Amino acid sequence: MIDRLRRFIPVLDWGRTYDRSDLSNDVIAALIVTIMLVPQSLAYALLAGLPPEAGIYASIAPILLYAVFGTSRALAVGPVAVVSLLTASAVGQVAAQGTAGYAIAALTLALLSGALLLAMGVLRLGFLANFLSHPVIAGFITASGILIAASQLKHLLGIDAHGHTLPQILSGLLEGLNQVNPATLILGVLATGFLFWVRKGMKPALRRLGAGPVAADILTKAGPVMAVIATTVAVWGLNLADRGVGIVGAVPQGLPPLTLPDLSPDLVGALLVPAILISVIGFVESVSVAQTLAAKKRQRIDPDQELIGLGAANIGAAFTGGYPVTGGFARSVVNFDAGAATPAAGAFTALGLMLAAVALTPLIYFLPKATLAATIIVAVLSLVDFSILRKTWGYSRSDFAAVAVTMALTLGLGVETGVAAGVALSVLLHLYKTSRPHVAEVGIVPETQHFRNILRHKVDTVPGLITLRVDESLYFANARFLEDLVQERVTRGGEIRDVVLMFSAVNAVDYSALESLEAINRRLGDMGIGLHLSEVKGPVMDRLKTSHLLQNLNGRVFLSQFDAWQALGSAKSGIAPGR
Amino acid sequence: MIDRLRRFIPVLDWGRTYDRSDLSNDVIAALIVTIMLVPQSLAYALLAGLPPEAGIYASIAPILLYAVFGTSRALAVGPVAVVSLLTASAVGQVAAQGTAGYAIAALTLALLSGALLLAMGVLRLGFLANFLSHPVIAGFITASGILIAASQLKHLLGIDAHGHTLPQILSGLLEGLNQVNPATLILGVLATGFLFWVRKGMKPALRRLGAGPVAADILTKAGPVMAVIATTVAVWGLNLADRGVGIVGAVPQGLPPLTLPDLSPDLVGALLVPAILISVIGFVESVSVAQTLAAKKRQRIDPDQELIGLGAANIGAAFTGGYPVTGGFARSVVNFDAGAATPAAGAFTALGLMLAAVALTPLIYFLPKATLAATIIVAVLSLVDFSILRKTWGYSRSDFAAVAVTMALTLGLGVETGVAAGVALSVLLHLYKTSRPHVAEVGIVPETQHFRNILRHKVDTVPGLITLRVDESLYFANARFLEDLVQERVTRGGEIRDVVLMFSAVNAVDYSALESLEAINRRLGDMGIGLHLSEVKGPVMDRLKTSHLLQNLNGRVFLSQFDAWQALGSAKSGIAPGR
Repeated sequence: MIDRLRRFIPVLDWGRTYDRSDLSNDVIAALIVTIMLVPQSLAYALLAGLPPEAGIYASIAPILLYAVFGTSRALAVGPVAVVSLLTASAVGQVAAQGTAGYAIAALTLALLSGALLLAMGVLRLGFLANFLSHPVIAGFITASGILIAASQLKHLLGIDAHGHTLPQILSGLLEGLNQVNPATLILGVLATGFLFWVRKGMKPALRRLGAGPVAADILTKAGPVMAVIATTVAVWGLNLADRGVGIVGAVPQGLPPLTLPDLSPDLVGALLVPAILISVIGFVESVSVAQTLAAKKRQRIDPDQELIGLGAANIGAAFTGGYPVTGGFARSVVNFDAGAATPAAGAFTALGLMLAAVALTPLIYFLPKATLAATIIVAVLSLVDFSILRKTWGYSRSDFAAVAVTMALTLGLGVETGVAAGVALSVLLHLYKTSRPHVAEVGIVPETQHFRNILRHKVDTVPGLITLRVDESLYFANARFLEDLVQERVTRGGEIRDVVLMFSAVNAVDYSALESLEAINRRLGDMGIGLHLSEVKGPVMDRLKTSHLLQNLNGRVFLSQFDAWQALGSAKSGIAPGR
Repeated sequence: MIDRLRRFIPVLDWGRTYDRSDLSNDVIAALIVTIMLVPQSLAYALLAGLPPEAGIYASIAPILLYAVFGTSRALAVGPVAVVSLLTASAVGQVAAQGTAGYAIAALTLALLSGALLLAMGVLRLGFLANFLSHPVIAGFITASGILIAASQLKHLLGIDAHGHTLPQILSGLLEGLNQVNPATLILGVLATGFLFWVRKGMKPALRRLGAGPVAADILTKAGPVMAVIATTVAVWGLNLADRGVGIVGAVPQGLPPLTLPDLSPDLVGALLVPAILISVIGFVESVSVAQTLAAKKRQRIDPDQELIGLGAANIGAAFTGGYPVTGGFARSVVNFDAGAATPAAGAFTALGLMLAAVALTPLIYFLPKATLAATIIVAVLSLVDFSILRKTWGYSRSDFAAVAVTMALTLGLGVETGVAAGVALSVLLHLYKTSRPHVAEVGIVPETQHFRNILRHKVDTVPGLITLRVDESLYFANARFLEDLVQERVTRGGEIRDVVLMFSAVNAVDYSALESLEAINRRLGDMGIGLHLSEVKGPVMDRLKTSHLLQNLNGRVFLSQFDAWQALGSAKSGIAPGR
């Protein structure tokens, strides 16, 4: 019973051995992460089209719930760039930004996404995420980064523009160019420049100025906070809000509120597909981060339990004024580097954010939106990496096609179309390839018992005996192909006595393929040619034994291809020279 | 140039060698097929919800066009049961039966379907049909047969009822039971009983009465025509039309008219998906029939050219008052058995049908619809075969699931949902299975160079050396699975020095899997364990050589597993006893 509970509630496991050293590690990590999270949470809420406090709220209950149900010790759960973009795209289709309906739809999206993740976890459907291939993910993340950065340019320019695709965003920016607000632009460019410098040049500069490595590290991580403070003070002191600089404004002061998502069938229907997409993409991003970090400490995470942890986190977000969340790369790496020992570090981070929600919100009244946009732009441009195009081009054209289509459609038609097309294309290309398998005619490598392609290796063959190595599992998509291929080979000419199908690469034979094998056997039988099988694997043999194929086979089944060779080849003229 | 033309217009090929013996064979076959086709064509038009002459028209131009462009020498193209049902289902959604719009929508459907088939043929997409697996087709045909037979019962009962799913049809029949027309019922039951007897008992009875085999055969094939004549005469002589027996009524007399399909975007949009379905299902049915008949004469058909032939036939139907057509099983077998030597037999059949359209239509004024319904019921019940359920259950549960779902959804939700669900489920189950591949730990079979699963065979292993045979191509869906599996195996315990991945069953490694192999290599390297590959196939090796994996590999690549065994196994303690 307790063991069963522990499987679903990992806190019962690591909580038992929690000690003072874990505590101090966790508290320090939490402090660093909190400093980083405050501006980031505000910024991502802006990206999602929500009021800034939603970003803070979305970081509190989810972190706590993940600490109870999650398995990764370093994962930091909260708003992330890509999921915020997906939220804006989905919710923007059912409600106008800035309305109460918009915020409520975001809660509904979080609840749906949480319920889906939970259901996938309980049904152990974590493997579904594997259908998002690495190239598709890489293409999607890069394109999303570009979309996000482009969507934030309006805040740097101080203009009004909308759009969910790159052409829409760019044309909106072009139209608004005559309304650029100079004060906002200056502030925005300075903030962006500073944040880029923080990321690339600040640490070395501090070290040259004599700062210790730890101090330099903490100061670097506090960079975004410094930008927030400096620009807020500038707006307040120089009265820039009167000059048209967009500011965050009044943010409610207090703990996250209790909120109720709207579950009306119309809204649920409209948000279901986006919720599936957010769940799967959020899960894949989170699991990749968690696995990478776990591997560094030789720990393991359980993907199905991760689904439950993320599901609980999203349901928590839905009831506490948040929006869809997942495990973020940047914050998790910071958490890990800061030495977080257990999920309790997350709980302390939540505590820090609660303090911020209660005490700091009045101080950000004058915080310019341009600073938040700069934070986002600097963060997401690190996601942009076109090298996947070059890498896949060199390795495999179909992987390249998947990346290119995902990127192009994400930029041109939006995130949902892009990722759906990428997945569909990968699956179709895979099916296409397996529907026309490679089949090699093999001969024996001299002085071994090993058989190889007669076209690639110097091998020996015997006249009248043909061995075809079928390089694919046999199933409905390629069953008829094999029929045609064998037919073509035996009618091509030459005196043929025996055909051996070498099944070393056949990992399954489905019912359609069984019928094709029976047809091949019948046809070869009519032509007086024996059909033999060799190297049939255990699981395939188990299945074939339940059919009539083996009883009706014109020939025999051999354990190894060498056995087949000895029995069928040496019977006649012995080993002939290779072609 | 001529050769190129011949590829697209096979008549240029077989037409050159056409002689007198071919001619007489073809004329006799055409006569027999014409006799069979007249009532069948009228009946299928009724099933499609169209006026009876549409069935005749749909048999003339399509046969001629197929004779020019098709490759099968025995295939008879025209209206068939399943495609007629699909037509009724698709056109019924955009127009009411009996209206001019209904007939025009059927023309549009034929044109769309023809254009799609032609496009697939030119693009050589014939392989797409392979994704309809044998079990899905078998389940679909059986369920369609039941649906068709049920939909015709209303004509036997003389009541009015509609519906495209079994529950709809049955509830319609129940509601109408109090309006049953006795005269129609008697006529219908007699016709059905007679036609069943023709199919099963007539030929033996004629032989017992002393008829020669050929005469018995021709009389049997004329059975449906006899039923048509007898019931028509009965309705006329007994004045049954006044007693409420539904009759065919006035049928225009003359050659097929020139007709124009309606290509308004709304109609095309509504019919596009049904047209895809009709094309693919019609193609699959036609190709199976053509391949079966071709194999009997050691001929070959070209599936891509078949697409062009069927495409031309459907386009012909669209412009001559017909509706979607394909190669039918019953009529093709009759054609084949009657000795059709070339596609010219089809042309003579078309001639016979033209004569019928010009001369016979006034004679069928009193033909009762119940007789046509009886013709359909007797024909389609031969399609119903539940044995596929038992066969797949014994062989493979996932094939069984595909059949059962296809049947249940075709009956319960209609033909389009049924077949789409069947295809989707087959593909998903296939992907699911390949996403969690079988991996066997192997050892050497004593006194051979052959390696087998240590759990199934008596084999020898060496301490410290683990060989894993991966029984699946490595691609995005199973890449992470392999990572986890190797990690789990090497951390499970025991002193491990070398891991060999035996790639005899790995037919492809995509980019995602390449990244996973690199991760495995890195992790094993960190643990001081060598990673080796053996039996990598040519095409896989070619691809891996374009990556950095082989340069960075902790271990070596061996041509054969035996080479790996000798190099890594005998290095230490020699061959140890098997487990």
